[in-house]
Amino acid sequence: MAHLLGITSTTKTFRVAIVGVGLVGAELVKQLQALQPSPFRIVSLSSSKSLLYHPDGLSPSEDWKTELASSGRRPDLHFLLRELAALVKPGQEAVLVDNTSANEVAALYPSFLRLGVHVVTPNKKAFSAGLELYEQILGASLESGARFLNEATVGAGLPVISTLKDLVATGDKVRSLSVSVFLSPADSGGWEGWLSVCADADAERGAQVTKIEGVFSGTMSYIFNEFSTGKEGGPNFSSVVSVAREKGYTEPHPADDLNGADVARKLTILSRLIPSLRSALPDGYQFVSTKSLIPPALEGIESGDEFIRRLPEFDAQFDQLRADAIKEGKVLRYAGVVDVQNGVIKADLEKYPATHPFATALGGSDNIIMFHTERYGARPLVVQGAGAGAAVTAMGVMSDLLKLV
Amino acid sequence: MAHLLGITSTTKTFRVAIVGVGLVGAELVKQLQALQPSPFRIVSLSSSKSLLYHPDGLSPSEDWKTELASSGRRPDLHFLLRELAALVKPGQEAVLVDNTSANEVAALYPSFLRLGVHVVTPNKKAFSAGLELYEQILGASLESGARFLNEATVGAGLPVISTLKDLVATGDKVRSLSVSVFLSPADSGGWEGWLSVCADADAERGAQVTKIEGVFSGTMSYIFNEFSTGKEGGPNFSSVVSVAREKGYTEPHPADDLNGADVARKLTILSRLIPSLRSALPDGYQFVSTKSLIPPALEGIESGDEFIRRLPEFDAQFDQLRADAIKEGKVLRYAGVVDVQNGVIKADLEKYPATHPFATALGGSDNIIMFHTERYGARPLVVQGAGAGAAVTAMGVMSDLLKLV
Ligand SMILES: NC(=O)c1ccc[n+]([C@@H]2O[C@H](COP(=O)([O-])OP(=O)(O)OC[C@H]3O[C@@H](n4cnc5c(N)ncnc54)[C@H](OP(=O)(O)O)[C@@H]3O)[C@@H](O)[C@H]2O)c1
Ligand SMILES: NC(=O)c1ccc[n+]([C@@H]2O[C@H](COP(=O)([O-])OP(=O)(O)OC[C@H]3O[C@@H](n4cnc5c(N)ncnc54)[C@H](OP(=O)(O)O)[C@@H]3O)[C@@H](O)[C@H]2O)c1
Repeated sequence: MAHLLGITSTTKTFRVAIVGVGLVGAELVKQLQALQPSPFRIVSLSSSKSLLYHPDGLSPSEDWKTELASSGRRPDLHFLLRELAALVKPGQEAVLVDNTSANEVAALYPSFLRLGVHVVTPNKKAFSAGLELYEQILGASLESGARFLNEATVGAGLPVISTLKDLVATGDKVRSLSVSVFLSPADSGGWEGWLSVCADADAERGAQVTKIEGVFSGTMSYIFNEFSTGKEGGPNFSSVVSVAREKGYTEPHPADDLNGADVARKLTILSRLIPSLRSALPDGYQFVSTKSLIPPALEGIESGDEFIRRLPEFDAQFDQLRADAIKEGKVLRYAGVVDVQNGVIKADLEKYPATHPFATALGGSDNIIMFHTERYGARPLVVQGAGAGAAVTAMGVMSDLLKLV
Repeated sequence: MAHLLGITSTTKTFRVAIVGVGLVGAELVKQLQALQPSPFRIVSLSSSKSLLYHPDGLSPSEDWKTELASSGRRPDLHFLLRELAALVKPGQEAVLVDNTSANEVAALYPSFLRLGVHVVTPNKKAFSAGLELYEQILGASLESGARFLNEATVGAGLPVISTLKDLVATGDKVRSLSVSVFLSPADSGGWEGWLSVCADADAERGAQVTKIEGVFSGTMSYIFNEFSTGKEGGPNFSSVVSVAREKGYTEPHPADDLNGADVARKLTILSRLIPSLRSALPDGYQFVSTKSLIPPALEGIESGDEFIRRLPEFDAQFDQLRADAIKEGKVLRYAGVVDVQNGVIKADLEKYPATHPFATALGGSDNIIMFHTERYGARPLVVQGAGAGAAVTAMGVMSDLLKLV
């Protein structure tokens, strides 16, 4: 029936290679297996040490982790690249799901995409590094029509990237392409690629989104929700960080959270979706104006334990910041701002009035993201909820996979 | 290249018939025309009085409204049905965009869908009426593979329906179909339809979403944000309603907002996306437990002006409710609740603590929707922002149109 009507509703299957089976990867395997029946078939699982592969699908058993560990095969991205590319045929597509935080996997996205393999990932690396890799990814995707989806890189399972894409794509200021970047629809992998190029060409007129402001790091959110409540007193900064670490909310080395790089990466990813900021960070996240909360004297300490042991030396400084905020009726929050109108992208420790949603609405390790746009006027569109955790992150990855179907 | 790789990236064009060119429809025309170049071609515009149609596209001029008014053709849905169906061919799809609130347009969705014409709409009628029409819509969509998208029916441009669909589709409790409703992928319009049927079959195990709670009506939001701030005193209920009406926030007859039906319709639409509640409202929104705020003595008054004139007679009653709430440290909000675990769907005037987001975070005519799910645990996923207005509603419709591409 569908065929008679000329509608391309298809019954494709998707061969999925899962690279990285840590917290998020293992949860994704669980979520994929729960989808029964399913258009997805897991053809590969790999960690940094070993690999399983079967082109027809693995149907991983309850203890696939043991199977994987004892596979005797080393992980090999170039092998996967060749194999997945060969699996792309009429009625069958292939997907690389990168659940690592490895640069070497990220660096190969253009190769996978160019050969028609979709890329779905929560790994921020490729989208927050230099613009060159990012443009190779865009180009490869346009060339073959294979898609890259990275919803879980910002806000995990929260609809952040999809919301921003919608705001930009439906903006009333998209203008036609300059000839230099024009690819005819026939060359470019379809209208979707085409629309994204059109939006990208909007730079001079500015997009409809005027500002994005949020608390983007679950760790920073937890730390300041506990540390700065707007009331006098409260725990020391070092003890809050220490508890956060014990709860598993920080990286093993808390400096990896306190340096603000995670927030800077997320701001880079979002900025590149906004036409006028697309090329604002040619060298990537390191050029986001980022406030590090690591006391200079503790910079470079290699051990997380040592770092935690010495952090109390600086409690008085953080106490002072908190007291200053209270005097103004404010709280401290580590926020990320993409100010489209003024071209400012920054991650900083900011003071917010005790009545501001960052003060009143946040709890736990929530993320909150406010989209200020022309259409929404004075009151922003807000998305809020847990922005980390294996289950919600894997959900973000799953929802991207379902977008391919 | 895409072809060589067997990827169905297409360069389809979409013939779009816009039925209803009031506030939302006119804004949609503007947004569609701003998308240059575009895969969409407007082939028809119609109001309740007249129609324009050209199968190759209308390229409406600046004053298409005058053109339309003077077209001399009566609107004719059966004519559109035949014409749009004939436009569906390889490389070309057709879309009915219903920007009316008419039941007679809604009643024809199954016919359009069955003939392969996609349906995109902000019109709540079809999805909140009896289950029979809803199931005909689902069935027709599965049969032909044509899609129906209704993001703007709840929360206008806010990502509410898409978020709920993601939460449900990635849920860990989707189980396989019972034979009676099984359609093989080949018959059913592809995996997407299939997945939605799978999710629908989840009834016995319960979905991952445990509760949805929100302020779903921009009008009710405005009224109670103004009326009940948690502080003593404040304006009378009747004067708040009267101002809301002057600002255009209410329907011409405020009783059409105060009866709660709009909220009940939205709750019906959301409930049907949750497997275990799919069939909970066989007769539609009228069976949602809904608190009407119309004083019984004013029930049935035909004129909005007369209604507003007599509303002050009941100010003392509303004052009392406000005072009772203040005594408990609470505010009044007209909320909608879908309690999945307990199978309760209700729209009611509720009291919330002054520290609750419905009290602290809301302003203007914001909607706020909280998704309580197993994965998000104690802290819900929250979406907030303007839930009405032509620009943001048309954006919701546009983002659905872009999903078709
Ligand atoms: N966890 C969260 O809440 C969260 C939230 C948002 C985004 N993310 C992102 O999601 C990704 C995964 O996070 P995670 O928490 O699951 O990390 P994780 O637990 O550390 O897991 C990482 C996995 O990647 C594997 N790996 C590393 N390099 C590899 C390589 N070259 N080839 C194959 N496998 C390799 C590791 O193998 P071994 O097991 O052999 O070490 C491990 O299985 C990261 O990019 C992270 O930033 C996570
Ligand atoms: N406005 C919002 O903020 C908002 C938000 C969310 C959802 N919505 C929904 O969006 C839809 C449109 O809202 P709106 O505010 O644009 O309403 P509106 O301004 O009243 O416009 C309705 C349009 O539909 C036309 N119409 C009615 N019956 C028709 C028929 N049988 N055939 C062809 N055209 C017909 C009307 O024609 P005439 O001009 O000849 O009367 C008018 O052009 C409604 O379903 C509403 O519930 C609106």
